[in-house]
Amino acid sequence: MSWITQSYMGKKAVARGKAGKSHNLNKAVQGDYHYVYGPYAKPVLTIDPGDIIVAETEDAFGGVIKTVDDLPSQKLNMPFVNPQCGPVAVTGAEKGDVLCVHIHSIKPRGPQPVGTSALIPEFGGLVSNSSTALLNPPLPERVMKYEVTEDGVKFSDRVMLPYEPFIGTLGVSPEIEAVSSLQPDYWGGNMDLPDVAPGAVIYFPVLHKDAYLYLGDCHGRQGDGELCGVAVEIPSTTTVQVDLIKNWQIAWPRLENEDFIMTIGSARPLEDAARIAYRELTRWLASDYGFDELEAYFLLTQAGKVRLGNMVDPKYTIGASIKKSYINQ
Amino acid sequence: MSWITQSYMGKKAVARGKAGKSHNLNKAVQGDYHYVYGPYAKPVLTIDPGDIIVAETEDAFGGVIKTVDDLPSQKLNMPFVNPQCGPVAVTGAEKGDVLCVHIHSIKPRGPQPVGTSALIPEFGGLVSNSSTALLNPPLPERVMKYEVTEDGVKFSDRVMLPYEPFIGTLGVSPEIEAVSSLQPDYWGGNMDLPDVAPGAVIYFPVLHKDAYLYLGDCHGRQGDGELCGVAVEIPSTTTVQVDLIKNWQIAWPRLENEDFIMTIGSARPLEDAARIAYRELTRWLASDYGFDELEAYFLLTQAGKVRLGNMVDPKYTIGASIKKSYINQ
Amino acid sequence: MSWITQSYMGKKAVARGKAGKSHNLNKAVQGDYHYVYGPYAKPVLTIDPGDIIVAETEDAFGGVIKTVDDLPSQKLNMPFVNPQCGPVAVTGAEKGDVLCVHIHSIKPRGPQPVGTSALIPEFGGLVSNSSTALLNPPLPERVMKYEVTEDGVKFSDRVMLPYEPFIGTLGVSPEIEAVSSLQPDYWGGNMDLPDVAPGAVIYFPVLHKDAYLYLGDCHGRQGDGELCGVAVEIPSTTTVQVDLIKNWQIAWPRLENEDFIMTIGSARPLEDAARIAYRELTRWLASDYGFDELEAYFLLTQAGKVRLGNMVDPKYTIGASIKKSYINQ
Amino acid sequence: MSWITQSYMGKKAVARGKAGKSHNLNKAVQGDYHYVYGPYAKPVLTIDPGDIIVAETEDAFGGVIKTVDDLPSQKLNMPFVNPQCGPVAVTGAEKGDVLCVHIHSIKPRGPQPVGTSALIPEFGGLVSNSSTALLNPPLPERVMKYEVTEDGVKFSDRVMLPYEPFIGTLGVSPEIEAVSSLQPDYWGGNMDLPDVAPGAVIYFPVLHKDAYLYLGDCHGRQGDGELCGVAVEIPSTTTVQVDLIKNWQIAWPRLENEDFIMTIGSARPLEDAARIAYRELTRWLASDYGFDELEAYFLLTQAGKVRLGNMVDPKYTIGASIKKSYINQ
Repeated sequence: MSWITQSYMGKKAVARGKAGKSHNLNKAVQGDYHYVYGPYAKPVLTIDPGDIIVAETEDAFGGVIKTVDDLPSQKLNMPFVNPQCGPVAVTGAEKGDVLCVHIHSIKPRGPQPVGTSALIPEFGGLVSNSSTALLNPPLPERVMKYEVTEDGVKFSDRVMLPYEPFIGTLGVSPEIEAVSSLQPDYWGGNMDLPDVAPGAVIYFPVLHKDAYLYLGDCHGRQGDGELCGVAVEIPSTTTVQVDLIKNWQIAWPRLENEDFIMTIGSARPLEDAARIAYRELTRWLASDYGFDELEAYFLLTQAGKVRLGNMVDPKYTIGASIKKSYINQ
Repeated sequence: MSWITQSYMGKKAVARGKAGKSHNLNKAVQGDYHYVYGPYAKPVLTIDPGDIIVAETEDAFGGVIKTVDDLPSQKLNMPFVNPQCGPVAVTGAEKGDVLCVHIHSIKPRGPQPVGTSALIPEFGGLVSNSSTALLNPPLPERVMKYEVTEDGVKFSDRVMLPYEPFIGTLGVSPEIEAVSSLQPDYWGGNMDLPDVAPGAVIYFPVLHKDAYLYLGDCHGRQGDGELCGVAVEIPSTTTVQVDLIKNWQIAWPRLENEDFIMTIGSARPLEDAARIAYRELTRWLASDYGFDELEAYFLLTQAGKVRLGNMVDPKYTIGASIKKSYINQ
Repeated sequence: MSWITQSYMGKKAVARGKAGKSHNLNKAVQGDYHYVYGPYAKPVLTIDPGDIIVAETEDAFGGVIKTVDDLPSQKLNMPFVNPQCGPVAVTGAEKGDVLCVHIHSIKPRGPQPVGTSALIPEFGGLVSNSSTALLNPPLPERVMKYEVTEDGVKFSDRVMLPYEPFIGTLGVSPEIEAVSSLQPDYWGGNMDLPDVAPGAVIYFPVLHKDAYLYLGDCHGRQGDGELCGVAVEIPSTTTVQVDLIKNWQIAWPRLENEDFIMTIGSARPLEDAARIAYRELTRWLASDYGFDELEAYFLLTQAGKVRLGNMVDPKYTIGASIKKSYINQ
Repeated sequence: MSWITQSYMGKKAVARGKAGKSHNLNKAVQGDYHYVYGPYAKPVLTIDPGDIIVAETEDAFGGVIKTVDDLPSQKLNMPFVNPQCGPVAVTGAEKGDVLCVHIHSIKPRGPQPVGTSALIPEFGGLVSNSSTALLNPPLPERVMKYEVTEDGVKFSDRVMLPYEPFIGTLGVSPEIEAVSSLQPDYWGGNMDLPDVAPGAVIYFPVLHKDAYLYLGDCHGRQGDGELCGVAVEIPSTTTVQVDLIKNWQIAWPRLENEDFIMTIGSARPLEDAARIAYRELTRWLASDYGFDELEAYFLLTQAGKVRLGNMVDPKYTIGASIKKSYINQ
């Protein structure tokens, strides 16, 4: 029996985590991709809780960086980057509910080398950029293309890395804002957090009627922090199952997998992202696991884990987690 | 002869800073106020460069905090706060231009006590809040009402403060985003910078066809940082003159008055706001005032001034300036 | 054959990682413990490279929190906290060398309950504190006592946690400063990083003649970030082997174990700690592993790991690492 | 009658702000200058409250940058920079008291061009540096020499700036630490705050018996933030009057002049410096001026001022102030 039956989705969601109808969200169905998370676009699909979506996502560059000679500064047309599938309307979702996204699989899509990374001017975690705005000369612009299969990421002739895919950008529409798909926030978005991977269930606060799910920006793998700002970007065929928990008030995204529960915060400076994530986790332990708030604070002091998602996007993202084996004793 | 004739607006704008037609943007003309800066709303007015707008702005609470017993947590309906007049379409404005806003006057509007401030839960510069998310108990919620006239702000029976009004939230639409009017950014928005005051000209990068000017959130006065998050909030009658400079590429808002030129940056942490503002000012000195970039860096080291706008909004705002008398020798 | 023979210590150090004489640094030998890392104290021992030290460390409170009724605000005498063993002079160490510390074992010492944690006023990662200085009321002061053996940490009647000990505070003397043992910095100090554990070798830049090694503040275990500021603090018997690499210029502490190499940065805000750690690791890959600097930047983007040490001390600490299996292909 | 008689020094100090004996602290008396603020050096003078010190300070480079060809990377011997006069023992000062320093005058000393500034590798507010550690190439190293007299600072043939001198580094010894004179903290130190100028009185918490006053690093003038990290550095003859207030517990330096009272905070990120300063000022208004703490919080929201000292040193410094005319109504 899968742990899913014991998950929040399995126990509390409308479809109890049972798979419903499958919807093909290929490029033809999607039509134009979107560059903001917001309520002003028309849904491309309407689904019921439990339904499955098989989405053809584009890579973060919309596929325009085809070779190492395609420089981002020449090929990209800002702000039209990080194209997103969706919005998908989920029947019955209302403000104050929680949307569940259970990731089934992420497969690379298209001709090799299918993975792309790049050094982009004024962008990245170890360079002067548009926020940490300095006078130093820039690094050279550079593009990397990687062969990526489910067997591995060929970083170079010398270095082979495991294929550990995840969804970089995933979430729901804000209530009245339409915010760049480059930004992570309390609705999800561009969290670039490697735990948002096949097997996990991610929970988002519903902020707008029908939730309006967006997704895109899959990565073949990524280090903690997404240091230069560009992971192993791949177009993908991504399969997710969507469900709905009514009347669950959460302030920020949450995640669970077989091993741990996690809360996700996005903010600057980085300690604020950690504070958000850890405060949410403290309160979750207090509300659902029988600890008082101060005891939960002590427990996370001794047993909490931190995963750095990104330190390059408009807000930085941190996931704070604790093992289920510690709290289910 | 006014210094305005020697300003960027006076020398480079389409109407050369000369006043054109006056438009009444009272509450009836405005109709619904807006809570996002974005391109998805329909313009309430279309004006030509040089035209004047006389706007009836609401206070940041939309007028619902009428007495000290009207607690924000009960009266406010988030995210519907900080209502904005506009958008005003400006004929001929295109991406790559600069919109000029010359502030003529700001007058309190409505019955006394017309000024409002408040301590709002999870908000403010010296408390645990939604970003710096801590476990401490909150401060008590509290509302202050102030008599505000052009002669002064009556802080208390004991303390009278000067009336030094400015526009808290002012700017143009992003290109594809629609962002909360609570946020300042490169398009202006909720900068809460006291130098955005009568007499000054503020320059914004045009990001969307017709610019789409928004304004609101006038303050009777404010200290540096807007410490508790709520200044002397007033409804107002605010008069601004709008002009347009074609083909001037600026990345962030700029400001000039009779005494100084200023660049405005908004970011977190606060040093990033300062870096943005100072880098923009360095480059402005290099492009327009005959200094090389390193000489400008030295000059600002010895003669730059920093004004803290807010340290409470989703991004913090800093203005960096230098006296015209130093650079026009 | 142990991986140690292939470590930096094994290959480059004066004693090639071979164990020398063992020195007993018990409480009698230590005499007064120290509260600063600096060159102004007289060495308690002088050892040769390769020698082993068996140190009796005190807990971070100097043992004065004996029961849950011993409140820190009453029992602690600031700044006399976090007592350190040492300084130990290492023969032949000079500025420009690297001191190697190979941790053999950490055992709890003293009567049960031997572990202590506490909520201390104005201190901790999720509360208003002396740096993030706010007006909120404090949390209640509270002390926890835990039974700690090599079999586990008894967090509560319900929750048992693994014993995963490490040295919280470890490093060498600055050149001319004498800095609180509460602070981590480029000389080591209060890093509170769980990877500083038995089995690992930590490398410190020698800044002063004879290095002057200090250590203390052992933890029975700790979560990432040491959230409330106080881990499972234990008095211990800790055994380390010291060695010396001549003429190796490093700017910040480094660490290796069987699985990975790591660089350690301490700074505020937290992103600066990450930048320091990742820049050091980028340069290490470039100098020793045959990558050019930009290739190393890409590699860490795809395969770097971040461990959060503390987010509560005067500087926050982050370790950035990469698996040896990725870079030794 | 001078405002000094109504100052804290005038009303509460041992000598009531009356001038006592004058002490010549010239280079011969000083002997070796110091590079740390700490208790381990022997006092060069012992004075009584009320006494005056006439100190010959060196510039921050110890005078070794004599021409524009003397590059810092070649001439400086880190960490031996920012030499300080002192320590001066003040009779009767004990932990829990406050040391008052009333600045009488600062005069440039030595042959022209007496002022120095420089771009130093890995240092400065708009470049990659040792904390904000990035991979970008550095700016060129560059030295500027300025003629500085009491009539002005000759920035260039074109630009003349006012002479507005202040003491960059001033404070007392920590209790047990000896910290680099490059760092500002709660004992004062390298605050680089232009309000520490002739006419002002600065108050420091006494942390060690006899206080141990240090001073140095005078600036002919400086912009807010000391942007490139090096102001108009001058050797000087600086005259200060020292007094002592018994049993006044303050946590951070305070300052007053004829117009305002100010609290000074130093921290990273910059918002923490502002939080410290504003919290201290809130509490000062509450303890001494008849406001309750929340009323003070509101008052500073509407009338507080922020001065950015440095955004380049190991901690950033901000002064928060309010006009005496507002609070003495």
